[in-house]
Amino acid sequence: MTLKVGVLGYRFMGKAHANALARLPMFFPDAPDVERHVLVGRDEAALADAADRLGFETTATDWADVVDEVDAFYNLGPNHVHAEPSIAALEAGTPVLSEKPLANDLESAERMAEAAESAGVPTATAFNYRFVPALRYAKNLIEDGELGEIHHFRGRYLQDWLVDPEAPWSWRNSEEMAGSGALGDLGAHTIDLARFLVGDLERVSGHCRTFVDERPVEDSETPEKSREGGETAERETREVTVDDAYSAQAELEGGVMATFEASRFANGHKNDHAIEIHGSEGSLKFSLERLNELEVLRDGNRGYETILVTDADDPYVEHWWPPGHVLGWEHTFVHENYEFLSAIDSGDEYHPDFDDGLAVQRALAAIQESDERGEWVAVE
Amino acid sequence: MTLKVGVLGYRFMGKAHANALARLPMFFPDAPDVERHVLVGRDEAALADAADRLGFETTATDWADVVDEVDAFYNLGPNHVHAEPSIAALEAGTPVLSEKPLANDLESAERMAEAAESAGVPTATAFNYRFVPALRYAKNLIEDGELGEIHHFRGRYLQDWLVDPEAPWSWRNSEEMAGSGALGDLGAHTIDLARFLVGDLERVSGHCRTFVDERPVEDSETPEKSREGGETAERETREVTVDDAYSAQAELEGGVMATFEASRFANGHKNDHAIEIHGSEGSLKFSLERLNELEVLRDGNRGYETILVTDADDPYVEHWWPPGHVLGWEHTFVHENYEFLSAIDSGDEYHPDFDDGLAVQRALAAIQESDERGEWVAVE
Amino acid sequence: MTLKVGVLGYRFMGKAHANALARLPMFFPDAPDVERHVLVGRDEAALADAADRLGFETTATDWADVVDEVDAFYNLGPNHVHAEPSIAALEAGTPVLSEKPLANDLESAERMAEAAESAGVPTATAFNYRFVPALRYAKNLIEDGELGEIHHFRGRYLQDWLVDPEAPWSWRNSEEMAGSGALGDLGAHTIDLARFLVGDLERVSGHCRTFVDERPVEDSETPEKSREGGETAERETREVTVDDAYSAQAELEGGVMATFEASRFANGHKNDHAIEIHGSEGSLKFSLERLNELEVLRDGNRGYETILVTDADDPYVEHWWPPGHVLGWEHTFVHENYEFLSAIDSGDEYHPDFDDGLAVQRALAAIQESDERGEWVAVE
Amino acid sequence: MTLKVGVLGYRFMGKAHANALARLPMFFPDAPDVERHVLVGRDEAALADAADRLGFETTATDWADVVDEVDAFYNLGPNHVHAEPSIAALEAGTPVLSEKPLANDLESAERMAEAAESAGVPTATAFNYRFVPALRYAKNLIEDGELGEIHHFRGRYLQDWLVDPEAPWSWRNSEEMAGSGALGDLGAHTIDLARFLVGDLERVSGHCRTFVDERPVEDSETPEKSREGGETAERETREVTVDDAYSAQAELEGGVMATFEASRFANGHKNDHAIEIHGSEGSLKFSLERLNELEVLRDGNRGYETILVTDADDPYVEHWWPPGHVLGWEHTFVHENYEFLSAIDSGDEYHPDFDDGLAVQRALAAIQESDERGEWVAVE
Repeated sequence: MTLKVGVLGYRFMGKAHANALARLPMFFPDAPDVERHVLVGRDEAALADAADRLGFETTATDWADVVDEVDAFYNLGPNHVHAEPSIAALEAGTPVLSEKPLANDLESAERMAEAAESAGVPTATAFNYRFVPALRYAKNLIEDGELGEIHHFRGRYLQDWLVDPEAPWSWRNSEEMAGSGALGDLGAHTIDLARFLVGDLERVSGHCRTFVDERPVEDSETPEKSREGGETAERETREVTVDDAYSAQAELEGGVMATFEASRFANGHKNDHAIEIHGSEGSLKFSLERLNELEVLRDGNRGYETILVTDADDPYVEHWWPPGHVLGWEHTFVHENYEFLSAIDSGDEYHPDFDDGLAVQRALAAIQESDERGEWVAVE
Repeated sequence: MTLKVGVLGYRFMGKAHANALARLPMFFPDAPDVERHVLVGRDEAALADAADRLGFETTATDWADVVDEVDAFYNLGPNHVHAEPSIAALEAGTPVLSEKPLANDLESAERMAEAAESAGVPTATAFNYRFVPALRYAKNLIEDGELGEIHHFRGRYLQDWLVDPEAPWSWRNSEEMAGSGALGDLGAHTIDLARFLVGDLERVSGHCRTFVDERPVEDSETPEKSREGGETAERETREVTVDDAYSAQAELEGGVMATFEASRFANGHKNDHAIEIHGSEGSLKFSLERLNELEVLRDGNRGYETILVTDADDPYVEHWWPPGHVLGWEHTFVHENYEFLSAIDSGDEYHPDFDDGLAVQRALAAIQESDERGEWVAVE
Repeated sequence: MTLKVGVLGYRFMGKAHANALARLPMFFPDAPDVERHVLVGRDEAALADAADRLGFETTATDWADVVDEVDAFYNLGPNHVHAEPSIAALEAGTPVLSEKPLANDLESAERMAEAAESAGVPTATAFNYRFVPALRYAKNLIEDGELGEIHHFRGRYLQDWLVDPEAPWSWRNSEEMAGSGALGDLGAHTIDLARFLVGDLERVSGHCRTFVDERPVEDSETPEKSREGGETAERETREVTVDDAYSAQAELEGGVMATFEASRFANGHKNDHAIEIHGSEGSLKFSLERLNELEVLRDGNRGYETILVTDADDPYVEHWWPPGHVLGWEHTFVHENYEFLSAIDSGDEYHPDFDDGLAVQRALAAIQESDERGEWVAVE
Repeated sequence: MTLKVGVLGYRFMGKAHANALARLPMFFPDAPDVERHVLVGRDEAALADAADRLGFETTATDWADVVDEVDAFYNLGPNHVHAEPSIAALEAGTPVLSEKPLANDLESAERMAEAAESAGVPTATAFNYRFVPALRYAKNLIEDGELGEIHHFRGRYLQDWLVDPEAPWSWRNSEEMAGSGALGDLGAHTIDLARFLVGDLERVSGHCRTFVDERPVEDSETPEKSREGGETAERETREVTVDDAYSAQAELEGGVMATFEASRFANGHKNDHAIEIHGSEGSLKFSLERLNELEVLRDGNRGYETILVTDADDPYVEHWWPPGHVLGWEHTFVHENYEFLSAIDSGDEYHPDFDDGLAVQRALAAIQESDERGEWVAVE
């Protein structure tokens, strides 16, 4: 059987997933056969061009037309369009992968998780960093008890693309469309890794900050009317209604102390997602910009060992290249798609699913609430 | 004129300062002449031995006998003995250097700062990391505006000497004697660097945690009576009444976001005091375990530049060795003593003084209060 | 027009190039259309399986049948089969890409280069590391004079897959099949980078060493007769007739001092190809295990700047992902195929071609001759 | 008994050894008592000033007057004055420490070693890097067999203080006074470490290079007559008669492959002495600019472990500070002086002695001879 995949969204994430689907046959021959069936978008010209490049059979401008026609629906749109199409697909019994964060508010996320529960089909929240070989390897070390009892989790995700106050406004700066800023976009990944590697967040204290309150609108984002006006030299700006950076303190289950941080103002850091964990028997460190490496302090050793996680018996590696031939960021999507599509095919459980996405959303909401109230907040 | 220095305490800090005093003539010939005049302690035998090794002329078992006899009084005892001798010395008009944190509670710190104010003589809180050449260089970069407007300060101080639950109890585990744990011992340094490099803390949200509630007492710490008992095989333990680790979020003056953390449970880290700062034009990173290096992102560059801060025109370096001949931890004490003694000699202002120590103490107290109340607390 | 590609070899390199060809349409839409037309090998069953997985239309067991049928012939076999099929293809007017080193001896390489010259079609020697974005970026820096006059080139390529004396014999241990060992397999890459980045080798002093003289034969490599014998418990071994490691000193054109080294006995190094260059105005460092990074000392700076070469205007990067989303080893093959196929399509010059391969072969031969004679040898 | 030490030379090395002597009582209380007895130099005013600062009792302008008056004679002058005073001291039965390299030519070094042999007193060639705790720790690992059989030694020593062609001429650029350039000044250290850690050099192939043939003379170096002339605007230069950089390939005893390199033209490197060793069971890496760290690949581990060699049971560390409180470059001199003076006091053997210095000198001479002859040369 060939799984027909329908994909909503054809920009950055659309390309990342299309590439992943295209690479499965050569590298994961035991994956189910997949057809890039239909690409969904609103701008017909751009859509046709994208479908051609990304290898889709057909296109559609209304997601409602496709959600019951495909064997898997990938919702890769902005956060505020995660809920409705995903719920519709689930109601049609179609497995759904949604980009992260699961939704732009907690209520939508809850509805999505309920729809997943009712549908009883596999769902995925696309926390792709769970599929970095080095982090899978880390997960195995922790599960095998090699770090002992965990005391500390420290995670931060640093970018700098908004440090220039003239960097243009985009949907990622809008609470309505994105829910939150660095918190939901970057922090969601870190919180998911905390849950994946260590455990659930029980209570949090959050701090959110917007450094630049409004940003210029690029022509392409300007409503037609205002562009027609034309006679004014005034620069058009739009309000930034989300955080540029957040930090959080947390207590995880089992009494683990945790700190979180993300920023779009961390000058010099492009995509620096870093994790550190300290346990009673060992520690580990990871950074996404060196994603083939894991630094591990093993019991009995004196310092961190820099492990290049590219050996044949490392997670997913035998599918690729010999030791020392490093993988890139995009490979995480191949692994993620492999696991999700295999679960659809086999009926096996898949994680991170919508429940995992909801758990992260609860933490995001608690951090925002904590920031507003100025006090610690329990995560449901 | 030769300055007579009296020193209370002859263990770790006593050795560090005695060494600093001994090295001034060869490397800082413009420093005032100094005599290691009197060493103060309670155990006469150990004291005599230490005085001999550390090069002191005489010894005394009561600090009250020396504070008005010397030109500078160094209080290097445990935190709970910082206040009385220091205040007595100041009342005698003697300049005082106190080890950090300034006191074990805010009230004592306030009395010390008041005594300093009344005395009108130089005082020092021994935040020696201000005297790392790389951090002085960093300070100059920031003051020259090379990082632009500061957005983020991130500081953490990681050690692991308590990760073993069988590590013995010491005065550092006692609230009565130390005031706090990782917070006051390590966090005080980080908070001082935040103030030195960026600015005052305005409000904080703190989190403190004790992982191990009681620890075995080593024989030398056991009260005589219980040792005499002897018949029991029971291990004697004492309660840990301070934090093993803390974290904090803060807002610094000018709206800078800051995060702080310290732990004595960070397996694999011995003395890892690390600072990161992001500004609108650049960033910097520092770690005490590589204290000769500063990583700087300069405006117009793309990545961090690893600067070995050992050139002749780097702070303090011309006193030592040619470029690339690295300095160690102890050199910070030489620089600190040079500056403090020069200030005593010249009457110039010296920082960090007791007011700086008090400012840090206010932040420590606010973090503790925030942790207890579960909400943000303003720093006075 | 669609270019039909015929590929000899379906193991490691076959997979690397097939993947590269498969990825062009999505990421390099301006590349010529390509058909993975025919896969060539001797073992029909394995071949059919590989062709299916790697996406080839047909298979062939004799390269002679395909070299004039295709628009590009890729010779990815062991070194000793580089010459004949490549020459036959060139004589048929077919552009050829050969894996490196160009041949297993200088005479064969010369015949290949002559055939290329006569054919007047594009050729490629597959020195894929020229296509690492960070090394292209380095090349641009050097050409723009940012390092000034070059004084030093230092290159080394460290692996460890033969450090175990029980690691099995393979064709790579045979002078007859491979020409040389670490020298030709790894050193060829380093010498090519020296030529690409700095200039030709003028004279060399070489040192070759075989640490383990014979190695066990795996069953699959054992001639049938000896396997039939069976009654003997004796382990079968085969002689190692190539170097396990080499080093070389060289003088490059313009008086640049150079050192080279490679080993298959460098315990702890999997695929560590590292380059360092020092010039009068700057320096740079690169390591293949962190291939997204380049360390650059710029004129006026004090230390190396760690540049993540993933910005949109870095070489090839705009075809892939946003800044900080790192590429892997395999991407070098995509860039290499893109350039070579584009040159076939456009008739533009392509490098590294067979002449470049020959120049490297001359250096390899000179190093071997120098090692045998114990003296410096000029490179023709 | 107090050992009287006489020191010839009061610049860089004079200060380094005077500091070491001054620090012994506080940190190495079991060292013999030492008096900085007499400082020897030619310029009386500068000498008196230096003696005052460095803590010497007296001064002398003729070394011949002091060599039989002291219990240890330190010869810290330029290389060409190592031989005569050292031999005179030995003939007077006085133990001698000579800075490295032992002499500026092989014949002088041989005479010095013969004098040492005849005298039967301890001698030292001041290869201070043997006394870096991390390298002592490395030595112990190797002796304990933790790296297995050694295959590779790689050493390089990079500086950049001559990269500017206008950097002034000094005695270090004169063959007559220094013997060689980077080779003897820097390479001597690396060769000594190869011998210390792995074994003797058996044969070498060397390459020496002078990038800048003449350099400007600073006023202080200009002979009086030419300064008087004055009427000419011509810049005075002097010929550089030593190498600016060298490289060497070598075979060490037991068949170990080795490569060596040093340069004063390695832009961006101040004092970067780096060592790498690969054995059948493990590997290690060291760099002087991070001298508290050793990177070790242990048997059974996958990557290098970054060890901070500052634990109480690491070599020499218990004399200094708690774990993580890093040492600097100068501490190597304290350890060296401690060991040498203890050997004088106890009559125990001391290494590296003049025989070790001679062994290094033979290697230096062989490298120079190899460079001149263009062929491999056996090291006697």
